[in-house]
Amino acid sequence: MKVRIGSGPMFEMKPIHVTIWNEFVPERTDPKIARIYPNGIHQAIATGIGPYGFRIQTATLEQPEHGLSNEVLSQTDVLIWWGHLAHEKVADEIVNRIQARVLQGMGLVVLHSGHRSKIFQKLMGTTCDLKWRTDAERERIWVVDPSHPITEGLGEYFELQHEEMYGEFFDIPAPEELVFISWFQGGEVFRSGCAYQRGLGKIFYFRPGDENYPTYYNKDVLRVIANAVRWAALPHGAEPVYGNTQPLEKITRGEFP
Amino acid sequence: MKVRIGSGPMFEMKPIHVTIWNEFVPERTDPKIARIYPNGIHQAIATGIGPYGFRIQTATLEQPEHGLSNEVLSQTDVLIWWGHLAHEKVADEIVNRIQARVLQGMGLVVLHSGHRSKIFQKLMGTTCDLKWRTDAERERIWVVDPSHPITEGLGEYFELQHEEMYGEFFDIPAPEELVFISWFQGGEVFRSGCAYQRGLGKIFYFRPGDENYPTYYNKDVLRVIANAVRWAALPHGAEPVYGNTQPLEKITRGEFP
Amino acid sequence: MKVRIGSGPMFEMKPIHVTIWNEFVPERTDPKIARIYPNGIHQAIATGIGPYGFRIQTATLEQPEHGLSNEVLSQTDVLIWWGHLAHEKVADEIVNRIQARVLQGMGLVVLHSGHRSKIFQKLMGTTCDLKWRTDAERERIWVVDPSHPITEGLGEYFELQHEEMYGEFFDIPAPEELVFISWFQGGEVFRSGCAYQRGLGKIFYFRPGDENYPTYYNKDVLRVIANAVRWAALPHGAEPVYGNTQPLEKITRGEFP
Amino acid sequence: MKVRIGSGPMFEMKPIHVTIWNEFVPERTDPKIARIYPNGIHQAIATGIGPYGFRIQTATLEQPEHGLSNEVLSQTDVLIWWGHLAHEKVADEIVNRIQARVLQGMGLVVLHSGHRSKIFQKLMGTTCDLKWRTDAERERIWVVDPSHPITEGLGEYFELQHEEMYGEFFDIPAPEELVFISWFQGGEVFRSGCAYQRGLGKIFYFRPGDENYPTYYNKDVLRVIANAVRWAALPHGAEPVYGNTQPLEKITRGEFP
Repeated sequence: MKVRIGSGPMFEMKPIHVTIWNEFVPERTDPKIARIYPNGIHQAIATGIGPYGFRIQTATLEQPEHGLSNEVLSQTDVLIWWGHLAHEKVADEIVNRIQARVLQGMGLVVLHSGHRSKIFQKLMGTTCDLKWRTDAERERIWVVDPSHPITEGLGEYFELQHEEMYGEFFDIPAPEELVFISWFQGGEVFRSGCAYQRGLGKIFYFRPGDENYPTYYNKDVLRVIANAVRWAALPHGAEPVYGNTQPLEKITRGEFP
Repeated sequence: MKVRIGSGPMFEMKPIHVTIWNEFVPERTDPKIARIYPNGIHQAIATGIGPYGFRIQTATLEQPEHGLSNEVLSQTDVLIWWGHLAHEKVADEIVNRIQARVLQGMGLVVLHSGHRSKIFQKLMGTTCDLKWRTDAERERIWVVDPSHPITEGLGEYFELQHEEMYGEFFDIPAPEELVFISWFQGGEVFRSGCAYQRGLGKIFYFRPGDENYPTYYNKDVLRVIANAVRWAALPHGAEPVYGNTQPLEKITRGEFP
Repeated sequence: MKVRIGSGPMFEMKPIHVTIWNEFVPERTDPKIARIYPNGIHQAIATGIGPYGFRIQTATLEQPEHGLSNEVLSQTDVLIWWGHLAHEKVADEIVNRIQARVLQGMGLVVLHSGHRSKIFQKLMGTTCDLKWRTDAERERIWVVDPSHPITEGLGEYFELQHEEMYGEFFDIPAPEELVFISWFQGGEVFRSGCAYQRGLGKIFYFRPGDENYPTYYNKDVLRVIANAVRWAALPHGAEPVYGNTQPLEKITRGEFP
Repeated sequence: MKVRIGSGPMFEMKPIHVTIWNEFVPERTDPKIARIYPNGIHQAIATGIGPYGFRIQTATLEQPEHGLSNEVLSQTDVLIWWGHLAHEKVADEIVNRIQARVLQGMGLVVLHSGHRSKIFQKLMGTTCDLKWRTDAERERIWVVDPSHPITEGLGEYFELQHEEMYGEFFDIPAPEELVFISWFQGGEVFRSGCAYQRGLGKIFYFRPGDENYPTYYNKDVLRVIANAVRWAALPHGAEPVYGNTQPLEKITRGEFP
């Protein structure tokens, strides 16, 4: 679709293609969670970020290739990931495929317990371990980088009245951009919004979203996810060439045995 | 102006307001440079990035308030800065005003010899000194972060056949995002594309553009400047509140003398 | 002094020369504070980090040149800075002198309300503003980078039972190394240990230490300050040369008008 | 061993235990390389950094467990890694063991073609691919962070008259600290000194050292390796605790279904 801004030239407006991946396990095995997310966390997120104008599809663990065929991934600008109980059931081949796509420029937004997913661990190079407590406590998420586009439309902080706690030390590489820090009622803090670059791709880890709480209906949480999708879908440069290469300048050398 | 993407909701497309500031001294005092930039470097840049659809105005040193009144700055999304011979003639009051606007979210793109401008030094906190040589040598600018939106539309590198050399050590804070590194024929390297965040604002330093060479007619250079403007105009978060503040949680304390 | 490790060669052990600067105002004007720090905050810190083997001297605002003559600074490896009420009374000339020394390699450890000192603002390029509340509440300081030498000897966190609160947003450049995050009882978080490099020098900002509380007698606080001194005194490279420079390689160029 | 500095207290001086790992393949299969490194690259490095006072041992691919048993690793403060032809022959179990030790605080210095080693790829999360050319050309390595302890004792740059070229894009996470940038005669640049933190451990990648050239006899190269060992052996904090954890503050909550 082409648009013109003011008297400027025509621009191609490209819609952002988002694939929301969910293991879709707790919502089908635990009635309490099924009541919160009757159609699954992926559908709640899809509905929640729908108004932001993305082209959204979903994929789940039990689908062939976990719903992440080469074709699906090649048409995905940003992949959102939610997993918790079934990390080990994700096939290594699919994990390698996702990693390759991220390095080629696909964005990746990892949510909550996705911190221990194979794909996040693989891209971080660390255990991504942390402290946790499921005690329905209050979380207050503070913006510590208001220059970041992921903070658009938020206030200085927002609150979740009942959430699982994640506490430091969070075993990740130091975020290239630290956007949020959480305060927890029980006395902990957590780096809750962490941005990275890997290859041509952008990665954002966002903490909230335990399946026991209706977090993915919260408007600020949805705003952050939508903002993160837009940020991760920003344009990137040309695909690099690797390997043996000819010189661009004449090489003159002195004595070499 | 409102647009719709696919079947999504209507979006407000906001044009980006760019002010190009130029000291406009060498083009009026040196006939050789006047031949290259007869209407000034600012006009060459304005023409060159025009096709990207920005709302562009220019400002120069000799105008009242250097053309940077509170009104102009408050309506500027991104300020582009070129200066060389007249850094000391820029009034401190205007420099402070620009700094304040950057901290409130205005983008700033500093070009070439602007590295020693008062505003860049003030925002960096260092001397911003470097090595230099005006010898019309070849510069090859390599992309070292192809995930960055500022590299959109570029190849793996681009060349300028005749440019001034800038060499390390460049006395700046380590860039938060290092996008380009230059190779020079005379044997030096330089961190040529350096991105920073300060307050709500984004800053990009881009090396090329000595007045002795027709650099601002080069399509890759113009592309980088246009990309930098878009990046620096990305949305930001809410303006922070500072100072004395009431607690958000009840404070209970033990014995305190 | 020369030492040998095992059967290795002799090494020169160089003592670290530390200058502790204090405005020394509240301790002399407020009896309540004088009771906590009868000899001044600088003396409490000097006593507290004494066992770490530094060569320590102190300097205060009312001394000639604020005790920071060229001679003193040239013999200082690391400068510790505490100020609060009298930031504006520090002469710009001395501030410029300190900045120059930091860029030449002197370490700088800025404590608590020193966030609004002229020297810290000048080196950061931002307002360094924040939220605050003096309400004797509990602060829990979490280690978020246990790889950092400044965390040596600490546990996963340490607590101060009564401290002033500092809250985000803290208007600083994103720390190059974020070492500590504080949790406050009243609901805020704060980036409490922030490491930077400027020129050849290293800078560490450490949050705790309001004059109303006996913070500088806390063993973990003293440990952090001592660790920060050692880190800021690590060796650095050669002083750079700036300005016009001869090529290191032969420059051959094509047609240039 | 205990020492006293000046009139300060006694300190425990701990020697740094270094293990130099080499696949030790090209030196035994290619007579031309055997002439340069008759006892292997590991021995050349061991001899070269010997004067810096480390406790050095070596390990090679063909040894049981590649010479990297749990006992050896647990007593290693810093592991130096050289590999090229036999990356795939390194057992995954040993790679996992090294990763775990790095996360627990062991330093890792990866040299030259080690960029494609399993351990470096695993810790980086990327392909670590690059451009290369074996053409005996000149490399000039520029210091771009003279505040870094790894630059101690170096000039502003140093030269290697004949080296293999490595060119950008180098597919690594953006270095947390970028210390060196190489200039190559053939027209490329490369981020040659890259520092990272992972868990409690520090990692340094250093580019030079192709087996075809006598690079590991160069005094500046040896100085960098020795400096990197010291940096990677700096103290770190306490080992974190992960998993389910009790609150440190009383949690009071409102209505929760």
